[in-house]
Amino acid sequence: MEQKRIYLDNAASTQVAPEVVEAMLPYFTEHCAVASSQFSHTPGIMVKEALDRARAVIAARIGAKPEEFIFTSGGTEASNLAIKGAAYANRKKGNHIITSKIEQLSVLQPCRSLEKEGFSVTYLNVDREGFVDPDELKRAIRPETILVTIQTVNQEVGTIQNIKELGRICRERGVLFHTDAELALGWLPFDVEEANIDLASFSGHKLHGPKGIGGLFVREGVKLKRLLDGGYNEFELRAGTENVPGAVGFAKAVELFKPEDSQYVQELRDYLIEGLLQIEDAELNGPRGERRHPGNVNISFAFAEGESIVLHLDMKGIAVITGSACFSRALEPSHVLLAMGYSHERAHSSIRYTLSRYNTREELDRTVEATREVVEQLRRISPLKQERRRGGR
Amino acid sequence: MEQKRIYLDNAASTQVAPEVVEAMLPYFTEHCAVASSQFSHTPGIMVKEALDRARAVIAARIGAKPEEFIFTSGGTEASNLAIKGAAYANRKKGNHIITSKIEQLSVLQPCRSLEKEGFSVTYLNVDREGFVDPDELKRAIRPETILVTIQTVNQEVGTIQNIKELGRICRERGVLFHTDAELALGWLPFDVEEANIDLASFSGHKLHGPKGIGGLFVREGVKLKRLLDGGYNEFELRAGTENVPGAVGFAKAVELFKPEDSQYVQELRDYLIEGLLQIEDAELNGPRGERRHPGNVNISFAFAEGESIVLHLDMKGIAVITGSACFSRALEPSHVLLAMGYSHERAHSSIRYTLSRYNTREELDRTVEATREVVEQLRRISPLKQERRRGGR
Repeated sequence: MEQKRIYLDNAASTQVAPEVVEAMLPYFTEHCAVASSQFSHTPGIMVKEALDRARAVIAARIGAKPEEFIFTSGGTEASNLAIKGAAYANRKKGNHIITSKIEQLSVLQPCRSLEKEGFSVTYLNVDREGFVDPDELKRAIRPETILVTIQTVNQEVGTIQNIKELGRICRERGVLFHTDAELALGWLPFDVEEANIDLASFSGHKLHGPKGIGGLFVREGVKLKRLLDGGYNEFELRAGTENVPGAVGFAKAVELFKPEDSQYVQELRDYLIEGLLQIEDAELNGPRGERRHPGNVNISFAFAEGESIVLHLDMKGIAVITGSACFSRALEPSHVLLAMGYSHERAHSSIRYTLSRYNTREELDRTVEATREVVEQLRRISPLKQERRRGGR
Repeated sequence: MEQKRIYLDNAASTQVAPEVVEAMLPYFTEHCAVASSQFSHTPGIMVKEALDRARAVIAARIGAKPEEFIFTSGGTEASNLAIKGAAYANRKKGNHIITSKIEQLSVLQPCRSLEKEGFSVTYLNVDREGFVDPDELKRAIRPETILVTIQTVNQEVGTIQNIKELGRICRERGVLFHTDAELALGWLPFDVEEANIDLASFSGHKLHGPKGIGGLFVREGVKLKRLLDGGYNEFELRAGTENVPGAVGFAKAVELFKPEDSQYVQELRDYLIEGLLQIEDAELNGPRGERRHPGNVNISFAFAEGESIVLHLDMKGIAVITGSACFSRALEPSHVLLAMGYSHERAHSSIRYTLSRYNTREELDRTVEATREVVEQLRRISPLKQERRRGGR
């Protein structure tokens, strides 16, 4: 009998909650007017109201006003709009941007694009647990600095930055503060007022909402040059026919996500970490406890190659990933682990397990057992391990 | 007993086909891996294959290779990427762009943005039926012209441009040709080879696919600067986690749309036009026959105000719109009708009825009757009409 597949890759967190699908369905087939036709007829008004309700739910969850939250096609668009939009709108004030070395590509690549256009970007270091030093941020801010963009949660090792402190520094210096908060929404307490945030990016599918929808918090008064020109949608910050089913589903996912869910997943996380660290030469990457994302486990298994572990676990019906999801393709070592000061070897032997409220302890028991078997098997044939036995390394 | 509501506004064409919803569902809750995790595990490979299949279906329908079609969040993003992307990538060759005065805002506004950045844009006139004169295009092309962007179908009056001729001219002169083809896909024969098209924008929800998904045809070899930086998705032309349910639904909508559907809707269209033109002082805006979009009816009812007609029809359970959907909000007259040489009065009294395969003749009979009642009622209280009776106008 085939065992049920275990999802501990991103899929765990990209599974759309059944309640979310149910909430979306009427907006596909029944309430299908264009939201901007609210000025024309009753069906348009109904759809516009659904969009506004969805906006209000998400805004309330992050301590924002509804008109400070706009829907985008996802986190990548949100971060592009925040970073490029703020850079272009503030070009006259200065051309310097500060970020960290461990951001997602949706933050790093817009920064690199802006460098080609004459902006200057400082990439802050992180310590061995992935934390940015607030004092280093202070020192990096110059008179011409217009934007700081530092993530709330790291996508690979789950490090939760001290964004309150980082936000406070930016506010004191009069510099805009953007944070990629895709993995914070729902999962963690997150308040744009408390942390002095000016811009924050979100993604529906990181908390069991649909793909293809995300959002950007834009503090009242913050000016952005928009990326998508056209109609007058989303307070004139983002043109395009509104994805109302997506917005409704996103809001439902936010509503569904309770602090107890995070607590449950965090317990699973610590259970899995303890189990995996029983394996010989296994080392945790990233911090422990409250400073780590509840759903993130990242372990390096010395002398075993990450890609091989992934493939062998896949054959055993367990889906995990190695390195950064985007970088997996290139077989390059994770830029996050390298920035944290780890060796290429440690980065190449890292496995990321992403947990969600849909996982169970029983699945984790199977996962630990399967990982142990795979790692031991790979080590038996590893030239590195053999070298070490001969006294190398 | 309340009668069933009749959708003759955009909603008619934005209703998602039930078969499309069914095709999408498994990709919400079952096959929910991230497509770029194809390099990691079986669920990722399955999702990536679904994305590739969807891409192949749409590419085949427009005569393109699969790798020439990228998914976007909708038609607006597609047109922004095509126009700005081509402009930035070809800045060294020249700074001149040609478009028409009757494009959607998703084309006109990117052009206006580029003007502020130093590009020069020519807005071609159209005749009284909405057609661009190919000879005027020829005359407008200069040595520094890098891009021509002219829609295939007009969004308000359904004019189908002679894009084969326009494309041929661009090809001969070595200028890139982009067309907003949102209303062509499915509805009309459309082939990027036949019409010498380099770039074409599409939208899922214009043919009973979902909102929040669209696409751009990018001919092999055409260079674009991308708008959304980040991961290596969509042949490195559009970063962001792929909206796989959206792509699957979009492709299903394309597959479902048969030439017979267009034929059926076109017959409805001509039936509705004939019925509405029986109303005194009603005039058709835009061309007739094969040069008009099968689903478009646009009629001006002299001496009656469009907004009022819409509101009264809404009370009778019939959803239509006036002017351009986006402009409705501002109560400005349609830029399309003005460019076609009509007066402000005629533009303000125009009503757009959008038909789909879900409409019936019985609905149209009710619609004609209701429109007649509403128009006659409004005219009884119209100062314009009274003035005319006194020999004014």
